[in-house]
Amino acid sequence: MRAAERVSVADAIAWIDAAVRRLESEEIALDAAAGRVLASDLRPALPIPPVDCAAVDGYAVRAEASLGAGAYNPITLAAVPVEAGDPLPLGTDAVVPSQRAEPDGTDRIAILEPTAPGAGIDRKGAMAAAGALLLAAGARLASPRHIGLLASITAAPIGVVRRPRVRLVIAATPRAGLADANRPMLTALIERDGGVAEEMPFPAAIETGADLVLVAGGTGEGREDRSAALLAAAGSLEIRGVALAPGETAGFGHTANGTPALLLPGSPAACLVNYELFAGRAIRRLGGLGADLPYSRRIATIARKIVSAIGTTEIRPIRLLADGRIEPAASFAETGLRAAVESDGFVILAEASEGHPAGAQIIAYFYDEDRIRAEPAS
Amino acid sequence: MRAAERVSVADAIAWIDAAVRRLESEEIALDAAAGRVLASDLRPALPIPPVDCAAVDGYAVRAEASLGAGAYNPITLAAVPVEAGDPLPLGTDAVVPSQRAEPDGTDRIAILEPTAPGAGIDRKGAMAAAGALLLAAGARLASPRHIGLLASITAAPIGVVRRPRVRLVIAATPRAGLADANRPMLTALIERDGGVAEEMPFPAAIETGADLVLVAGGTGEGREDRSAALLAAAGSLEIRGVALAPGETAGFGHTANGTPALLLPGSPAACLVNYELFAGRAIRRLGGLGADLPYSRRIATIARKIVSAIGTTEIRPIRLLADGRIEPAASFAETGLRAAVESDGFVILAEASEGHPAGAQIIAYFYDEDRIRAEPAS
Repeated sequence: MRAAERVSVADAIAWIDAAVRRLESEEIALDAAAGRVLASDLRPALPIPPVDCAAVDGYAVRAEASLGAGAYNPITLAAVPVEAGDPLPLGTDAVVPSQRAEPDGTDRIAILEPTAPGAGIDRKGAMAAAGALLLAAGARLASPRHIGLLASITAAPIGVVRRPRVRLVIAATPRAGLADANRPMLTALIERDGGVAEEMPFPAAIETGADLVLVAGGTGEGREDRSAALLAAAGSLEIRGVALAPGETAGFGHTANGTPALLLPGSPAACLVNYELFAGRAIRRLGGLGADLPYSRRIATIARKIVSAIGTTEIRPIRLLADGRIEPAASFAETGLRAAVESDGFVILAEASEGHPAGAQIIAYFYDEDRIRAEPAS
Repeated sequence: MRAAERVSVADAIAWIDAAVRRLESEEIALDAAAGRVLASDLRPALPIPPVDCAAVDGYAVRAEASLGAGAYNPITLAAVPVEAGDPLPLGTDAVVPSQRAEPDGTDRIAILEPTAPGAGIDRKGAMAAAGALLLAAGARLASPRHIGLLASITAAPIGVVRRPRVRLVIAATPRAGLADANRPMLTALIERDGGVAEEMPFPAAIETGADLVLVAGGTGEGREDRSAALLAAAGSLEIRGVALAPGETAGFGHTANGTPALLLPGSPAACLVNYELFAGRAIRRLGGLGADLPYSRRIATIARKIVSAIGTTEIRPIRLLADGRIEPAASFAETGLRAAVESDGFVILAEASEGHPAGAQIIAYFYDEDRIRAEPAS
């Protein structure tokens, strides 16, 4: 395609944001809720705990009966054995832990220190009052902690935003001697962003039932590059070519039934970069998640000059130095996907930028999304 | 249990580290490889690319035939149409991109500028030489990038460390009026740490076939607390009680067939904390992952005094302030699991510590493991 036809990355992102809307909600069982997005506020119907409860295993007592107890003045008082979580028996207002009580075998215990009203007790509503806002609509059930909190409030199905259904078309044969990297990589990326990937060929992929169509490969100008023509014939091709390196052959359009369709370059590094900037954003927005890149971002100082071509937004892998500065790492053009694995993150060099001198401060994105590290080499 | 019987957190961790070993490896298909740990070095058998390839769609030429071409001196030369990824045809050494060539309909093109040998080409081995170390044994296939790199090298099954099989026993009924939070929370935690959770009751859970047995609940001294006695009868109970808050009733032992078994307190916040410190560590070590807590860790300044009881290691939720300092948030004792969701992380207050004054610097752990944020409220 001619350079003049290419749109800017900013315009391509604006196209995405106009083309997708957050999906409707659905009810699901709690077991399937990890990673999902709440469709409405989570508020417990009853206080948590619903009544005053024992906080420890021990003996429920009336605290006033323990007044005056001491090491040289054991006091014997009426007590009801309770376990942590048991509702507090009527007429009691404290729980003496098992290890501080000497049961006498009847319904009384001896104690060597006084206890205060409320000791050893979880008060009704201490964790949450009835109707308290525990998680707001739009919150992601991102961690096992969230699942646990949710499960402690309700066992009923919960309303979450539906997961985007993403049709994946692998349109191009892989490069000579290489296996197809795009299918497994895109499947994992779609999963990461909350979508459900369904691989299928043209023309089945553009029938109704999908929220997004992704076509990988066949976007160039070669003999066998038919993706753009197929989308144009089956709906509309609205953008062809983005001023982005790697991966300027991306395309954007709709199928005849109005489903947004993105054409991603087949070269794996270009496919990855286009997915990250455009497709991932579309999937996260459909699923009710934030549109931003799912990486940590901070301003970093460049240790070595980074050069960039004016007129193209460039994604450049970087290495994080021990002193916190960054430097350019091998580029996608040099080592393909290996550049994305052997770097610590990347910078986005704007279309209008010629690059940055050493010492400049720029926004850097870091691949530290995975907190579970490999075992250190020993 | 008596306080004197309790072991320190450090001793409990040492018990875990002695009790588990990294599991053997297994061969799996690439589609199932996300998150797994490589059992051996990943080195491509052939160079990548295996031969010189076209890097762009265009025309393969002999560069020397283009010498002298210019805007006012178009040169017509022999050319072979190629697509990105095609092996370079014999006798050519550069690729002219489609948009810079004017085909004449035969096997020649006209160009307006000279091209250099190697232009538009991915050299054999540019991404990786044969035998180059791409990913080392022990590396985690943590991201879609890793999957893509792996897929571009091989479609064959790959050797990874086997996933730990974790038997999960929910031994206690939940607190009055509360649903069981532990089952879904522990299932999600085990999954996060690379394990496969299988819920089953005593005594089936302690039969052979598991790598770890986790029992949630029934660890206290109440009437219905039988977990410690059951483990002691079915194998050995080696530690009962850890000087940890929340959750001092944890237990550690082995089943009769030698499988490590951990008893986690049933109160959800205590269950979570014990899982994080002990069970998660065991599962990660079994699966070949790093033993460290899967959270980001940094030294932070405390904005408000944190008080702690000597003799017990305490896990205290914290809030991250806008200026980067931290302050104590609601404790697990106050709001249970809600404390883990409405905080930004936690600090570990050592057994020997009485706490820390404002201004002190301590290690803090942050719950930022999930980089995909909820959509900002609008």
